[in-house]
Parts: sequence; structure tokens; C-alpha cells
Amino acid sequence: FVLCCLSGAMTVPDPRQREALMQLEASMQTGGRMLLTDAERRLDDLLFKMKQKEVMRPDFPPAMHFFKARHLIRTSQIFQLLQQMPKGAALHVHDFSMVDVEWLVKNVTYRPHCYMCYTDIASVRFIFSSQLPKPLPRCSPWILLENLRAKLINATELDNSIMGNLTLFTQQDPDTVYPSQDAVWDKFEQAFLAVWGLVTYAPVFRDYYYQGLTEFYMDNVMYLEVRALLPEIYELDGSTHDRTWTLKTYQDVTRQFTAEHPDFFGARIIFTVHRGINISMMTAVVEEAMKLHRDFPDIMAGFDLVGREDKGRSLWYFRDALFLPSERGVTLPFFFHAGETDLEGTEVDQNLLDALLLNTSRIGHGFALLRHPLARSISKKNEVAVEVCPISNQVLKLVKDIRNHPAAVLMSENHPVVISSDDPALFGASGLSYDFYEAFVGFGGLGFHIGSLKALARNSIRYSSLAPNQQEKVLALWQRSWDKFVSENDLF
Amino acid sequence: FVLCCLSGAMTVPDPRQREALMQLEASMQTGGRMLLTDAERRLDDLLFKMKQKEVMRPDFPPAMHFFKARHLIRTSQIFQLLQQMPKGAALHVHDFSMVDVEWLVKNVTYRPHCYMCYTDIASVRFIFSSQLPKPLPRCSPWILLENLRAKLINATELDNSIMGNLTLFTQQDPDTVYPSQDAVWDKFEQAFLAVWGLVTYAPVFRDYYYQGLTEFYMDNVMYLEVRALLPEIYELDGSTHDRTWTLKTYQDVTRQFTAEHPDFFGARIIFTVHRGINISMMTAVVEEAMKLHRDFPDIMAGFDLVGREDKGRSLWYFRDALFLPSERGVTLPFFFHAGETDLEGTEVDQNLLDALLLNTSRIGHGFALLRHPLARSISKKNEVAVEVCPISNQVLKLVKDIRNHPAAVLMSENHPVVISSDDPALFGASGLSYDFYEAFVGFGGLGFHIGSLKALARNSIRYSSLAPNQQEKVLALWQRSWDKFVSENDLF
Ligand SMILES: [Zn+2]
Ligand SMILES: [Zn+2]
Repeated sequence: FVLCCLSGAMTVPDPRQREALMQLEASMQTGGRMLLTDAERRLDDLLFKMKQKEVMRPDFPPAMHFFKARHLIRTSQIFQLLQQMPKGAALHVHDFSMVDVEWLVKNVTYRPHCYMCYTDIASVRFIFSSQLPKPLPRCSPWILLENLRAKLINATELDNSIMGNLTLFTQQDPDTVYPSQDAVWDKFEQAFLAVWGLVTYAPVFRDYYYQGLTEFYMDNVMYLEVRALLPEIYELDGSTHDRTWTLKTYQDVTRQFTAEHPDFFGARIIFTVHRGINISMMTAVVEEAMKLHRDFPDIMAGFDLVGREDKGRSLWYFRDALFLPSERGVTLPFFFHAGETDLEGTEVDQNLLDALLLNTSRIGHGFALLRHPLARSISKKNEVAVEVCPISNQVLKLVKDIRNHPAAVLMSENHPVVISSDDPALFGASGLSYDFYEAFVGFGGLGFHIGSLKALARNSIRYSSLAPNQQEKVLALWQRSWDKFVSENDLF
Repeated sequence: FVLCCLSGAMTVPDPRQREALMQLEASMQTGGRMLLTDAERRLDDLLFKMKQKEVMRPDFPPAMHFFKARHLIRTSQIFQLLQQMPKGAALHVHDFSMVDVEWLVKNVTYRPHCYMCYTDIASVRFIFSSQLPKPLPRCSPWILLENLRAKLINATELDNSIMGNLTLFTQQDPDTVYPSQDAVWDKFEQAFLAVWGLVTYAPVFRDYYYQGLTEFYMDNVMYLEVRALLPEIYELDGSTHDRTWTLKTYQDVTRQFTAEHPDFFGARIIFTVHRGINISMMTAVVEEAMKLHRDFPDIMAGFDLVGREDKGRSLWYFRDALFLPSERGVTLPFFFHAGETDLEGTEVDQNLLDALLLNTSRIGHGFALLRHPLARSISKKNEVAVEVCPISNQVLKLVKDIRNHPAAVLMSENHPVVISSDDPALFGASGLSYDFYEAFVGFGGLGFHIGSLKALARNSIRYSSLAPNQQEKVLALWQRSWDKFVSENDLF
């Protein structure tokens, strides 16, 4: 059928042939061949009507910077439906940006023994300590927040200023505040360092992760794969726990949370390391990753590098370390960030191909994949799913209008993709729903429908690191929530 | 070879296999398999070095709005080389935006009998007349420019203000001046109307077209296909000439110019009509187009619709009129604008498929083609080239960063494309070189090379409306200029 019609041209208008071609094209997209129940069809009619209204808005949210669009999205009926929708899994989320920064300020910084200092570049650092901590270089003397707040009539201003240091989100014009990729990445790194002292304190570390699971669970996400640095975690007396302790804590908290929430399936950890380290450090880290993967097969999903690709070292630079597992015949699944760049034709731009040569299980971002037709074919043929994080790519200035995001093209051809949120707290988002909104309304326009959403949710389970029998279980769990969601929104 | 390697993964680092895959991918792009002479290789080395410097700039021109980037581009060595380069043909250029507006102001408005009035929305209108013309509705009384200028000590300010009305280009921040697509299209239409009274005056009409050919010729373009409205042209006494006269005038001036410039090949006209008209008008226009194509086969290349797609009627709306030629077995080649939109999944978004069903010879813009995998396959299989106009798409707010332009993807897979400039005068550009710069540096980054440029120039001849034997002639003429260009820039 495809071949017959690829000649294209008609000699007279033939509405039926045209309709058939339009349907053929529509069927090629993600979820384009999804079978729908009658109730799903009715919900789809509702969604279509909502979308027709949304597309006609002069202030179309996917065309705007997320910081300016967020309040519009929040009042969108489509968004509210997407929040309720069981979205499956979040497969690309980082350890210390899972939780709304308001919780960090209002809960964590109000705990006893919390010290703060101001750096000389107008950021902040934190530490919990039973006694006055040693001063940090390039930072003001430590201030005990308890004492500081006791002196204030109203702590709102202080709290807001702290909050502004923990996220990129701003009420001001984002393009003025962050005029370049360098500027926005600088702030990214400062916010990360500001959060660090709070979340690596043992009691907070547990609570933060629990709270993170809660936020995703409340957003109707049932399973997570968290990219985690597994840092040393400290206690009030300055003593520290090693990486194994950190991983075990993730395991404990996950088990606890799952036990308390039977419709939640769980979480796994992708151990990550910064791409700025040197080769011998990388070799040691890969060795440790292999060991952790052997010792904690349940919780430990695999390995990845983090940090800005454009400024960091390439995968090929670390090839000897990264090929260690396969040379030894040891399994260590990779989930590489690759192609989060618009540097075309440079060494960094080869990360996509190199990730595939390293047999990566998925590709983080893959923003540059469209410009790499060979890498794209391999990714499609081998079902190496692309973890698409639209808001992250927009905030980090790779694309302005979400409609021009390359994943719109990938999804038009049913390339294996999942939608994720990367660092929702840093971007002023939470859970998955905002990114689902951008994907559903921005990538697809009127062309995406409930089949697209179903396919995205199912993809997130299918392309997870879970073993096939576990995937079956998650899928069954998801199907139950999905059916409930559809029937609850069935107004007929 | 492709199949063997699509498995991707290695078990140990194999630099040779990696290199082979990288080269395979590079060979897939436009010009990726072009054979190069030694002199071309040396020029390519030079280009590569220039590009390495260009890519490292913090103010990377393709990432910026063209209005802000223009002065940077002008001083770029790559741009200066591209200006000298024989670029072949300009296949998507509109009749009344070929000539720098400075020429209109400094030459045309200084001619005798030139009247101007100010509209109530702060635009201007012109007319040449032997006596005081009848007043225009919603416009000030007519002012004879000769009289007005005689009263001024210095006309520079007046001339600059007139110039600002004839182009979208501005020294102010373009995103402030044109905050939305609606705003920029409004100004587009006002500028078009302002130019109208100048260029439809018979003596100016001839001179304007001659000057347009000159500007493209000076920019090392050797052949043009001009989309022309073929309007009634008026004389000083108010009498008018019909469409046939206008087409004949194009033919005469083209012949004259070609005779005077033996290394210029010529030009053909694509008759265009606004997509706002009704069906019976469209039927009449298509009838006339068939007649003109029969009577003036040399100059008349075919037919197209113009005007903003998002607000105009769709090709399918006009299907009965547009299928007339094929129903009657009459040849009328189509060169449809299609997919110059980011409205996804709407009726307008079907123009791409409909253009192909109408057997279009090329696609104007095709900005939305990537989101239409079936239309994309048909376009590739049938070699229906896409006329890519990067600066136009950026100024009209379809894409902000040229690196995200869909043609970067099309060219990475050697989709048939040509580069053109649409309305260079309206965008503050001229000829083809600025758009070649955006394509070469922006689409390709470090990955495009002299083979890409050669392929683009050759594409512009191969996908022209010229008969095969004429294409051979142009190609031979182009090859001579190309060899001269390469040897002149051979510094070894
Ligand atoms: Zn990430
Ligand atoms: Zn055009």
C-alpha cells in the first residue's frame, strides 16, 4: 500500500485517496496504530476539543518559555487531565532535583543545626552541623539560620531569596536573566551546589528521596529510574557514610515507599559520575559500578555520566574505562546522556554514535539525533529509546519553541522515545505532567491524540531497565490505573 | 555495509570501525559523496579553518536573529568567500523584493512625478502621476516628493523614514518590534503595499527588474526563477497594461540583461496569485496561467499561490481549479508554497501532502515537512526539491536558532533541497549569499564542507524548471565560473 501511493500525484481530486494517505501518515506516529476502546474514543473527543481551543490561543504555551508559560499551563484543562493520567515511568530524573525547592526551604532549612553562608558570587551554601563548621573559602562566615530567622519579624523575604538560589525558575524575563547557554549553565551549577549541603545530610537525604517519590507518585507516576551520584552522606558530627550506604538507603526508602503505596511499583538507580573527571578516576568508578551492579542487582540499574556535554569530556575520551565491562564479559547497562548539544560536527557531537557503539540501553536527551541519520537508524533498529526532556532543553536554551523540538519529528515516525523531566525542581516544574503537556500539545499539535499518550506511558515501561516479567507486572498495574482514569473522565 | 554495521555496538574500542561509521554518516549528507579536485580540497581546508573560528564565537551568527547578526556576517571571511562563489540559481525569489530598498528610495522616489501619502496606520503609499492623483481612502493628501524635499535642508531623515516603511529590517530589537507572527506579517503586508505603487509604474517596473537581475548577478547567481504577480502596470497618465504586457516585459528585460552579461543564463517567471481569492477567481486565473504557459513557454515556468498560508485558503480548498490542467491534459507546472507553518495537524498543515498530490515540481519552504514522514518520502522519492529560505523563516518567526531549522535534518540525509532568499529586500538581505551563509554555517556546523556547497549549487540547476538540454548548458557555464573561483582562491 505504501509503495503504490508513494507516487503521490493524482490526475483528478480524489478525496478518498487523499484521506487514505493522511491516515497512513497519521498511523506512522507514536501511538498511531493504538487500538482504542469506546470510552477512550470519547475521552479523545474531549481532548481534541480542548486542544482546538488551546491551539488557537495567541499565547500558545509551547511557543513560550516555560517560565512564562507555567501559569497558563496550570490553568489548562489538558494539563489538569494529564496530571490525573497514569503516565507510567519517569526514566530520566536526577537525584537532587526531584523535589519542589519550596519544600527544601520551608521544611529542610527550618530544621535545627542548619548553617548557611553567602558565596562571593551571590549564591549560598548550606551545612548541618552540631557545632560551628569550618569556614568555606570564598564564602561569608556561617550563619545559623535558626538565629537569623529569630531576629526577623517576617522570614518570607529571606525564604524567597534562598529559594531563588536553589532553582533556575524566575518571575523575571528568562532571556534577560539567562542571555546565553553559558549563563544558564552557570546558574544551574550554582543552584546544584547550593542544594548539595542540604540534601547530603543523612536525615534530609532519606526524607528528600521519600518526598521525591511522593511528588512523582502524586503526579501519577508509578516507577522511576533515578540518576544518582551516590555521594558520601554526612551526619551532624561530620562523620560520613560511603557509597554502599547511600545505595542501600535508596533501596530501603524505595521499599518502604512501595510498601506504603501498593499502586506504586518502585524505583531503580542509575549510578552517575561527572564527565569532568580524569581517565584513571573513571576507570575506578566503572570498577565500582560493576561491583555495585553485581551486589545490588535489584536497585542498581546501570551507569551514566553527567554534567554539561559541551564543556565535558567525550565518551570516546573515556573509551578504555567504558569498555571495561564488555571486555571482561561483565554486565553493566549504560544509560548515556548524549547529543544534548547544538555543536555540530565537533567531538562532543559524536557522543551519540559512541553511546550506541558502547551499547547504551537508552539515550539521555538525544537532542542532536536528527542530524545523525546513521545513529538515528541504529537507535530505531535496536530500540534504543531516547529520553526526551522538552522543558529541560528549552530552559537550557537548545530550542525556543517546543514545536521545533526534534522529538516532534521522532514521534511522527514512532521512533522509540519516552518523556521525562530531567531536573524538574531546577526548572520550576514537578513530576512529569508539565513535560507531558509540552510533548502532547507542542510536539503533536492537533495531530496527537489519546493513542499517543497511551503509547508514551507504555513506552516508559517497555524501555525501562526492568526485566520482562517485571515489566508485565508494571504494565498490568498501569492498565488498572489507566482504565480507572478513562472511566472517571467518561462523561457520557 | 550499512546493514552489517547497524547493529552498532562494539565489545572493545575499535577506532577504525568507528571512523568508518562516522564517514558513512558524513557521506549521507548533501554533497557527502562529491568528488573533489586537489584545488577544491585545499580550499576546503581553508574553509574548515575559518569555520572552526566562526563556531567558537560567543556571538555565533546563525544562533542570532539575522537583523542582529547581519553586521557580523558581513565581516565574516566565510561570507566573503560565499559571495564570490558561483551559487548557481535562485529558485525562490519574489518579484517585488529583489532589490535593496535603498535603491528604491535613492533612485526611484527621486524621479519626477512621485507622490506619497501617509496611511492612518503609519505606513506610506506611492503613485507616479502627471497630475495630482485622486486621494486614497485612509491616507493623507498626496504630497509631491519633489516639493517636499525642496523644502528640506537635508532629506536624509525623510529618506530613512521612507526606507523603514519598505522593509522589515530594523536596527531596534526585532523581537520587541515584532513580538509575534501576526505582528511581523502585518508589517510584511504593509511594506509590500508601500512598495507597490513604486514598482508597478511602467518605467520603474522595467528598471526594478533589471536592477534585481543585476543584484543577483553581482552576487554570483546565474539564473533565477521569479515568482511574479504579473499585475497591471500603469503609466504616468493612469493608463494601464495587461498581464501579457507584463510577462513580455519580463521576457524583454531578461533577454537584454542576458545579452549584456554572457556569463548570466537568464530567468523564468512563476506566475503567482494570492491565496485569499475565491474559487471562481482561482479558476479564471488557472485558465489564464495555462494560456500564458502555452503562449510564452520560454519565460513562463509555471504557477503558484502566495500570501501567508496560516491565514489563507488551503490548496485542497482550490482543488477543482488546481486540477483543471491535469484534467484537460494541459501542462502547467506547479511550484507551490507549502508547509510554511507551525500549525500542526490543521487543514493548512495538509498543504504539503496536497502539493504533492497536485504533482508540484518543487515545494516552497516545506518548513513542516519533517513532521510529515509520508510527504517527506514522496518528496524524496520523486525528487520534489524543497526550496529552503532560512532567513525568511527566521524573520517570520518560525525558528529562532538556524541550527534548529528542519533543513539541517533534510540536508543530513541528502533530501533534494535548494537554498533561496524569498524576499531578500524585505529581510535586509540581498542576493543569495546571506542565506548560503546561514545554511553552510548554521545547518551544517563543522560537518558541511565544500562538497556541500558544490552540491547546493548543482541542485539549484538540476531542480530548476529548465529542460535537460538547457540544464546542461547552465551546468557547463557554472562549472567554468566554479573552476575560476576555486583557482582564484587557491593560495598554494
Ligand atoms: Zn539529565
Ligand atoms: Zn515565498
